[in-house]
Amino acid sequence: MICGDGDLSEGISHEAASLAGHLGLGRLVYVYDDNHITIDGPTELALTDDAPKRFEAYGWHVQNLGEAANDLDVLEAAIRTAMAVEDQPSLIMVRSHIAYPSPTLTDSPKAHGKAFSDDDVRATKEVMGFPPDETFFVPDDVAAYYAEAGRRGAATRAAWQERVDAYTGDRATLDAVLADTGLPGWTDALPTWEVGEKVATRVASGKVFAALTEVVPGLVGGGADLTGNTGTELKGAKVLSKEERAGRQIHFGIREHAMGASMNGMAGHGGVIPVGGTFFVFSDYMRPAVRLASIANHKVIYSWTHDSVGVGEDGPTHQPIEQLASIRAIPDLRVVRPADANETATAWRDAIDHSGPTALVLSRQDLPVLEGTAGNDGVSRGAYVLAEFGPEAEDLPDLVLVGTGSEVWVCVDAAKRLAEDALTVRVVSMPCWEDFDDQDEAYQAEVLPGEVPTLAVEAGVSFGWDRWADDTVSIDRFGASAPGGTVLAELGISPENVVERAQALLDEVD
Amino acid sequence: MICGDGDLSEGISHEAASLAGHLGLGRLVYVYDDNHITIDGPTELALTDDAPKRFEAYGWHVQNLGEAANDLDVLEAAIRTAMAVEDQPSLIMVRSHIAYPSPTLTDSPKAHGKAFSDDDVRATKEVMGFPPDETFFVPDDVAAYYAEAGRRGAATRAAWQERVDAYTGDRATLDAVLADTGLPGWTDALPTWEVGEKVATRVASGKVFAALTEVVPGLVGGGADLTGNTGTELKGAKVLSKEERAGRQIHFGIREHAMGASMNGMAGHGGVIPVGGTFFVFSDYMRPAVRLASIANHKVIYSWTHDSVGVGEDGPTHQPIEQLASIRAIPDLRVVRPADANETATAWRDAIDHSGPTALVLSRQDLPVLEGTAGNDGVSRGAYVLAEFGPEAEDLPDLVLVGTGSEVWVCVDAAKRLAEDALTVRVVSMPCWEDFDDQDEAYQAEVLPGEVPTLAVEAGVSFGWDRWADDTVSIDRFGASAPGGTVLAELGISPENVVERAQALLDEVD
Repeated sequence: MICGDGDLSEGISHEAASLAGHLGLGRLVYVYDDNHITIDGPTELALTDDAPKRFEAYGWHVQNLGEAANDLDVLEAAIRTAMAVEDQPSLIMVRSHIAYPSPTLTDSPKAHGKAFSDDDVRATKEVMGFPPDETFFVPDDVAAYYAEAGRRGAATRAAWQERVDAYTGDRATLDAVLADTGLPGWTDALPTWEVGEKVATRVASGKVFAALTEVVPGLVGGGADLTGNTGTELKGAKVLSKEERAGRQIHFGIREHAMGASMNGMAGHGGVIPVGGTFFVFSDYMRPAVRLASIANHKVIYSWTHDSVGVGEDGPTHQPIEQLASIRAIPDLRVVRPADANETATAWRDAIDHSGPTALVLSRQDLPVLEGTAGNDGVSRGAYVLAEFGPEAEDLPDLVLVGTGSEVWVCVDAAKRLAEDALTVRVVSMPCWEDFDDQDEAYQAEVLPGEVPTLAVEAGVSFGWDRWADDTVSIDRFGASAPGGTVLAELGISPENVVERAQALLDEVD
Repeated sequence: MICGDGDLSEGISHEAASLAGHLGLGRLVYVYDDNHITIDGPTELALTDDAPKRFEAYGWHVQNLGEAANDLDVLEAAIRTAMAVEDQPSLIMVRSHIAYPSPTLTDSPKAHGKAFSDDDVRATKEVMGFPPDETFFVPDDVAAYYAEAGRRGAATRAAWQERVDAYTGDRATLDAVLADTGLPGWTDALPTWEVGEKVATRVASGKVFAALTEVVPGLVGGGADLTGNTGTELKGAKVLSKEERAGRQIHFGIREHAMGASMNGMAGHGGVIPVGGTFFVFSDYMRPAVRLASIANHKVIYSWTHDSVGVGEDGPTHQPIEQLASIRAIPDLRVVRPADANETATAWRDAIDHSGPTALVLSRQDLPVLEGTAGNDGVSRGAYVLAEFGPEAEDLPDLVLVGTGSEVWVCVDAAKRLAEDALTVRVVSMPCWEDFDDQDEAYQAEVLPGEVPTLAVEAGVSFGWDRWADDTVSIDRFGASAPGGTVLAELGISPENVVERAQALLDEVD
């Protein structure tokens, strides 16, 4: 691939090149188009790295061609040399000249962002020996070259398809890998949990991931140095390394952004469904890659754990507050925050079934397995009526409590207390706004009837909840350093506070 | 400062060290606590960089001490050597042992996240020659050392204060710098624009920034290789460099994250008000630093320009869509999206007056200077009634159109058209949600009366707008590659579409 000073200045270039060097990715070749020009002016305004030395420090094979950018033979020889190095990625550094061979704009920062004028185009064509006034001119030899490349590609593709068709090995596995799905009946492998068990959704997720790797052959992944913590450990699996190319357990290192970006690359290549884990607060570090996954509809699965102030003692820097809202704001990204272990299993099934990216947002702390979550189709619809408490409603309940993830049990507990006052209280679990948004209006109104006072409960900012609820029990401030249970309770995420706020909402409506 | 393998694995370590090397920041000394241990296990699972070579490539002075972590004399000598190198930052690499000298946990990954048990603590104290069962034990010589350090610090501080008090130079400038504000009467320097002029808010912002640097002596800044583009160029100002330490123009290079982080460091140091510019879509790259600025209440100013699909041909990757919502979701960050040049001037004044971070979200494209924005106190209240069109309302208008930034003129235009049908239409400009949120309920209800049908217009996702409006004209999808005006119009950001949607909203209410 071709890269420039901008690519190599960005932080991700460090994470990616360091990981590629560590893994000895010999098929990776960077051609560094070193044109000495950025938008602000000459690169030396801000950049004086010794790039070859830097890449050698990462364990790369490095060639510095100097002023050879327009000597195609030298360039081709260097690329062939790089390709022959199979145990190291390669950097080919080439001193180039932006806008070459324009007589007016070569080596000018203006060439970066400004379109060539008609005169600039004409003058450049003259230098290149092209008819200066002909537009969309393609020399015959160039057309022939690309036509030949097309034929070569078609033949390669046909030969590949023949090999696939003739494959006599494990056909089911090959088909599953090529279709990015599981073996026939793969969903039978999903574990279930008994009501009343207590299990963190990150732990449940880890069990599901491990179970699914047996039946979804494309699943690979791990964490950004939080593999055990984020439920992305595959005990007994081979670790991907320089020596073991078939390893399905990936240690991305402390590199969230490169994790997200390499997941995109893997998904774009196909044949694998990449899974990557980190703490939810660090989703901020990989956000640009998450956005690209959403634009490109890459099938990747994020395991973002420690998803609230329940993180505890690590304090405000490590406690996500605004991340749920900010991640939900990204178009075309499914964000799923399961209420318990059984919703987590369904969330995984849906993530495998989905064609694009899915973010699983999971608790650090244990959560009770709830009545009504196991195998409930409502999970896949984004929100559903989990239970109603109190006298049976003739028509509509008196109150709806809607929660996500670790706050659903809080809603259930609060609903039971409110029901003691002869109120009919519905609890809605809403693991995925995007899926609920895709339902028809009738279903939406059935689950969340607009005319019933509705209180949302979520351990994050209230931002966005006005769409679904009349009021929220939420956390519109940064967190605090204390044991997770203490922070949650002090910031109002408790059945007692939900009861109080629900009563206030009902009083207001009366 | 002390850093570990995690710090040096993250992408920002590249951006920051490359910039520090380029600027020859001789006062910067990293001690690399190279303990070979990460949370997942030994560092070699994922990290095999040659760190000394890497930092040499950045132009750093490097000392590799090997196994000297517990030899305080060697360590002190190395730090003194590093401090003596004044034209390069320094890396001191030290092979250390996590949890040393615990007999049970030295060199164990468990020591990373797990608290020592009582037995572990006792055993370690024994090795160190401390009374094993005494808690909060501080040896006398350690207490004496820190008491002395305290006295030394107090004396240094007193001497500094004396120098400040005795200063006979430009007192006004010194006072302004120390108070992070402007010279007396500084707001007189704010430029104003005439109604009807057409100017992009990024251009207006650049004029304000340049004007204010004359009267707000702490202002420094620039862009992440988009200095001219983001209104952060200071024509004629000295450029900060290895040779010119007093330069107020900073070229951060193509390093958004390091720009945000170094702005935090500068603001934390005090005496400067750092300004940093990049395209709004790239705010994603610096988000973790923005979050930290918000937690720590650092007085920094972001100039985020090219703030919508108005970016144009660069396409979906460069067109912000969800960034406004996701940035507004961060607690304690003021996000200001001015409607025109005059609102931009007021936004700058408020940013200088504010104690914490302010994000200015600015247009690439020209915007008309509107009637009623110049010097309007409502700008500082977050939202205000800009105008009403149509027959004078006896009590309340028939409709409220609320817009931000580049959509306010669209609201004005649409309101005029709607007024032709004898409707009274109010236009509210809402540059800052956070400031409006801080107003009392009476003012909020005066500006946005809940009972009047309200349509919000913003060239970004609708996420969050349910709080203020009944419906939105918004962009709930990624953008498209075409000229900015074309993309805006095709995605519905036009007076014609606002009129249509407003009529639909009024029909629905009837």
